[in-house]
Amino acid sequence: MRLPLIFAGLLAAMPALAVEGMWTPEQLPEISEALTRAGLQLDPAALSDLRGQPMGAVVSLGGCTASFVSPRGLVVTNHHCAYGALQLNSTPENHMLRDGFIAASLADEPSAGPAARIWVTEDISDVTGTVLGAISRKATDRQRNDAIEAAQKRLVAECEADGQYRCRVFSHFGGVQYRLFRQMEIRDVRIAYAPPEAIGKFGGDTDNWQWPRHTGDFTFYRAYVGPDGKPAPFSKDNVPYRPRHFLPIAKDGVAEGDFVMVAGYPGRTQRYQLADQIEDAISWSYPTQIEIFDDLMALIRSAGEADPKVAITYVATMAGLNNARKNMAGMLEGFRRADAAGIKRGEENALVAWLQSQGRSGKAALDNYRQYVDLINGQRATRERDRIMAMMSGSGLIGSANTLYRLARERAKTDDALREAGYQERDWPVLEAGQRQLDRRMDPGVDRRILGYWLAKYAALPAAQRLPELDAWAGLSGDAPATDGLKARIDALYAGTRLDTLDARLAAFTATPAELEASDDGFLRLAAALYPAMQRLEAERKTFNGAVARLQPGYMQALIDFRDSQDRATYPDANSSLRITFGNVMGVSPRDGLYYQPFTTTRGLVEKHTGEGEFDATAAQLDAIAARRFGTWEVPALKDVPVNYLADLDVTGGNSGSPTLNAKGELVGLIFDGIWESVASNWVFDPALTRTIHVDSRYMLWVMDEVHPAPAILEELGVSPHLD
Amino acid sequence: MRLPLIFAGLLAAMPALAVEGMWTPEQLPEISEALTRAGLQLDPAALSDLRGQPMGAVVSLGGCTASFVSPRGLVVTNHHCAYGALQLNSTPENHMLRDGFIAASLADEPSAGPAARIWVTEDISDVTGTVLGAISRKATDRQRNDAIEAAQKRLVAECEADGQYRCRVFSHFGGVQYRLFRQMEIRDVRIAYAPPEAIGKFGGDTDNWQWPRHTGDFTFYRAYVGPDGKPAPFSKDNVPYRPRHFLPIAKDGVAEGDFVMVAGYPGRTQRYQLADQIEDAISWSYPTQIEIFDDLMALIRSAGEADPKVAITYVATMAGLNNARKNMAGMLEGFRRADAAGIKRGEENALVAWLQSQGRSGKAALDNYRQYVDLINGQRATRERDRIMAMMSGSGLIGSANTLYRLARERAKTDDALREAGYQERDWPVLEAGQRQLDRRMDPGVDRRILGYWLAKYAALPAAQRLPELDAWAGLSGDAPATDGLKARIDALYAGTRLDTLDARLAAFTATPAELEASDDGFLRLAAALYPAMQRLEAERKTFNGAVARLQPGYMQALIDFRDSQDRATYPDANSSLRITFGNVMGVSPRDGLYYQPFTTTRGLVEKHTGEGEFDATAAQLDAIAARRFGTWEVPALKDVPVNYLADLDVTGGNSGSPTLNAKGELVGLIFDGIWESVASNWVFDPALTRTIHVDSRYMLWVMDEVHPAPAILEELGVSPHLD
Repeated sequence: MRLPLIFAGLLAAMPALAVEGMWTPEQLPEISEALTRAGLQLDPAALSDLRGQPMGAVVSLGGCTASFVSPRGLVVTNHHCAYGALQLNSTPENHMLRDGFIAASLADEPSAGPAARIWVTEDISDVTGTVLGAISRKATDRQRNDAIEAAQKRLVAECEADGQYRCRVFSHFGGVQYRLFRQMEIRDVRIAYAPPEAIGKFGGDTDNWQWPRHTGDFTFYRAYVGPDGKPAPFSKDNVPYRPRHFLPIAKDGVAEGDFVMVAGYPGRTQRYQLADQIEDAISWSYPTQIEIFDDLMALIRSAGEADPKVAITYVATMAGLNNARKNMAGMLEGFRRADAAGIKRGEENALVAWLQSQGRSGKAALDNYRQYVDLINGQRATRERDRIMAMMSGSGLIGSANTLYRLARERAKTDDALREAGYQERDWPVLEAGQRQLDRRMDPGVDRRILGYWLAKYAALPAAQRLPELDAWAGLSGDAPATDGLKARIDALYAGTRLDTLDARLAAFTATPAELEASDDGFLRLAAALYPAMQRLEAERKTFNGAVARLQPGYMQALIDFRDSQDRATYPDANSSLRITFGNVMGVSPRDGLYYQPFTTTRGLVEKHTGEGEFDATAAQLDAIAARRFGTWEVPALKDVPVNYLADLDVTGGNSGSPTLNAKGELVGLIFDGIWESVASNWVFDPALTRTIHVDSRYMLWVMDEVHPAPAILEELGVSPHLD
Repeated sequence: MRLPLIFAGLLAAMPALAVEGMWTPEQLPEISEALTRAGLQLDPAALSDLRGQPMGAVVSLGGCTASFVSPRGLVVTNHHCAYGALQLNSTPENHMLRDGFIAASLADEPSAGPAARIWVTEDISDVTGTVLGAISRKATDRQRNDAIEAAQKRLVAECEADGQYRCRVFSHFGGVQYRLFRQMEIRDVRIAYAPPEAIGKFGGDTDNWQWPRHTGDFTFYRAYVGPDGKPAPFSKDNVPYRPRHFLPIAKDGVAEGDFVMVAGYPGRTQRYQLADQIEDAISWSYPTQIEIFDDLMALIRSAGEADPKVAITYVATMAGLNNARKNMAGMLEGFRRADAAGIKRGEENALVAWLQSQGRSGKAALDNYRQYVDLINGQRATRERDRIMAMMSGSGLIGSANTLYRLARERAKTDDALREAGYQERDWPVLEAGQRQLDRRMDPGVDRRILGYWLAKYAALPAAQRLPELDAWAGLSGDAPATDGLKARIDALYAGTRLDTLDARLAAFTATPAELEASDDGFLRLAAALYPAMQRLEAERKTFNGAVARLQPGYMQALIDFRDSQDRATYPDANSSLRITFGNVMGVSPRDGLYYQPFTTTRGLVEKHTGEGEFDATAAQLDAIAARRFGTWEVPALKDVPVNYLADLDVTGGNSGSPTLNAKGELVGLIFDGIWESVASNWVFDPALTRTIHVDSRYMLWVMDEVHPAPAILEELGVSPHLD
């Protein structure tokens, strides 16, 4: 089915840019008219103020978003964002995941774990001039890459100098703009309230990406700081953090058609990829990746069937592979349904046509565009090899050895600024944590089979793509792979290693390169032997990145100009930096003959309840529903308490836990998912089908009022509990 | 979730009895007010006239329904009702199933096969007096059963005496009423038009019971009779039948909310079963039946994996098992969802309470009710044995042997009236056809394993339930099953039989009992040996049926009186006799948060089209949709051609192919399925969830106009084809 014309028509008919768009705070004045027309009752300018209300209340958890909801540092996010912390605190006697958690008092709030963080964005500054100014006019591509990297490291180092902040440079529009984020890093995060998993993860993986949905995906954290008010590691002496701003809970919730907006930290989108890139994703990248995931899952599954302990070790890995596979399959389905490649091609052709009509400036942009296309397509030559090396060299024991040897190399440099990003002093704690956690998710027997899988794929590559260092180790020569010898080598590697013990890894963590090169551990020696090859690949990548930095901004600028000429504002692709998206509460017809109603209710919980597995509502909840103890949370039109609702916002992974705000900037829910038909929107946003899924604030309050009561939290939220 | 109160409230709020009800034609005056209020524009009395318009146009195909739609004997029914006939006529060169069929002229219409029949109901007469009058007041239960059987056989024999009709007695309300149907039997049925399977079965098993649906489930037959206008077997000299009435095609189709009704021959419902019976179905009958089906499917599947030919032999059996299993699982799910057992119990308690308030007459009815409950529950004692014997004794080669020996016994009687129903002369052709067809669906290796499965189950029964004759053959004694010896006996049985050949079966078909008893075929000797045991079981059954005939009418009459007292008319359970149901075109919310829109369109065909398997629309159709060649069949509100629609009618299997009529009695579609949530309605009709699925007449016409054109059929239907 070809839709480009219809689609273009739809876009043309939307003067207000509604729906699509992950806007940076600074862009809000640019779209203020659209915001107001959509229903925003605040001054749009207020949303640009990071330190003001409501944006000052929105925080990052790293991979998830959250928000302050009380003056005493109470933070609300998704249950699935707090899942690891709840798991960490669960014991057979006190099974926090299964039973939920209600802190009797502040003193009873347990730590969310040493790695838990809350980042409060205090400032975003435009560092475009500094970054781009660091590039000399005659720079080669490699020099360009290195200059940008060095400038970013310098900016981060300066910003973090006083030890109070965590800083990061974000590149918008593929290098047209650079922004430095300065964030306060709260390191003492505690759990204040969690519903039982039967509420917080009701429906589990079965309902993931699905509508109708009935998931109470919320949990409350509390941020703690030292008695001096400054971030500090966990300590009994710490005190609740007093945020500058917190979100009030909307008294009336939302209704169909209402304006809503979401502020958060969306991870990554590919909205401005070339048509060739989406075609590659459809014809090669996703299908082959799905094949690889299927292979790996089959391998792990068969090992798990033979040994249940192995199955447990890889349960998270399997869930991740499965989810990624489902996601990719969904994207391919979505691409086909919406003819995404056709749309992209049509848009790109329109850009080219417009540039051709723009005289001299258009000609330069066209030239730049063609070079950019050639550059991107140049990657195809070695894409098989590059994928194998990328996935293999970071995986399991060989990944650990590569990291340890690289770290030794970087640590040997005396100037921290010269160390590769990711291996600087600021990164060492994270690297160490990675080495510590390896055991929990790795079984040497499975790891051996996975490495064997990758090496067999590697051995099948044409000789010209292979790496002499790895060939030498693996005993490969010419085009005839010697897989028998390879198997013996892998067996010897695993038989002789101690890297599967934490002690060995921690010892290697502080070793010198020479010590590792002389190690009697085959993995460490292999990492050392591969290092020159890995460095060559890295050098190629850096040269490529430099070329991208040379050409992509021109391409993006041309696109922005073209869209400007059509009165269409352009937002940068998601890149984990702070964004705002707005729209309305609304249902959707995902397919002919079917309509997703905008709200679900507790009635659906009872319908789905089987008493088993993912659909096992608590007795307390079933009782409250049966007795219709809905209190003030009942919505007359629904004759029930709303559980989840749909809206047409533009989000992606990383937005999880983001507060959903009404027209006044009050909290009306949390975003936690999108419908299956939205999966492909990371590449091509389809306003007709894309819908976000939110947990309704009234459901959260009802659960804490009538189901698994937390009167102290309700009081702290300034909510009058319902009086029977 | 308990719904009885809400449910009762709903029923009470429905003064017009809308929706639920499979009414007999004679009941229509009784519900005429409700019909008129629902929107019927005809005189309700007209619907009672079987020989009038529109009822005179509605015919039975045996297991399906159809209707005359032209004065030249054109008949429309479901594609799935004509599936066997299309299969029979499909060859690699002329693949009627795959490619569809358009007869170039009447002379090119192929036979639907020697077994194809069209039954035109000419008369229904009340024979209650005759049947019940045949029972002496002092009859034992067995005598009562035999008297009823004899009366029915006599009525049928008289009715069929002149050879022009096929007759059958139907018992309504469990024996409160008896009706004799006289039907003209048209024996020359031909195929006039069929769409390709890609339209007629679009969505296949995947979409079975599902919405949204996009199945063009229609096919046209033509009825032929001898030159004298009387039914005759297929002959070139036959001429199209001139029906007394045929249905005109509605010019405007239907819209949401419109009145619709369906006339047809629904097979079987269990609306008036006792609460104990539905509880038994939930706790024992369906779960154990599902287990048995799973066992049998696993057995056949493993045999099919070893030998693909076996897989093909059992493909229809597997489809049947699978469908029945899915259906039962759906019923159990539906029972749970609606608390069907609770509703039944509530209704039965209300009946009892009402009877208790009715003084002396109530007391007699109560007494009858309690006896009836005891009688029904008495079946539990031997239900395992009875199920095993029923399923085993009719299955495969042992089933064939049992039938052949029984036939020999019955044939030996000189008076046809004394022969058991099903073994009378009128039944012999069907019995012979069964023996002829056995090979096509039976493989001796699989059959042996199935018989072994049943015998192992039988051997595990308590000794008191077992049958001496079968024990003797199987070498069983006491409670310790001797399964090893059993296996040897089964092996010997299959090694020594020739009953797997058609010749042997046909030879046995005309043999005497003595010849079969002396046969050297173990199966025939086993059947003879088991005969006394089978006769005892049959005698028990007949005594039980006599007791049912004694008690059930009283129970049903009490229920009818009770419902009368609430102004609720009562329709008899479906029993394959002619019924009318009415309601409106409407969508449904099958689950919280979800809504099934009442119409699907060709847009959904494109959405579902994958180009493979069950979702492989024809190029002609995709082209017509892409070019929007919708002609006059486009519905402005939908901007598309409607494909299927939902209504809230009350139907069951056997209604397939029934014409859907509008308020004027014009054809607006064909019913062909119900949504998954309707499956349990055979026991407890849930008006909130039950929806029927219809193919829209406009879709049928569009397909024949623009997609796979059949201008002659359109002309015959009196439809002006769309002119581009």
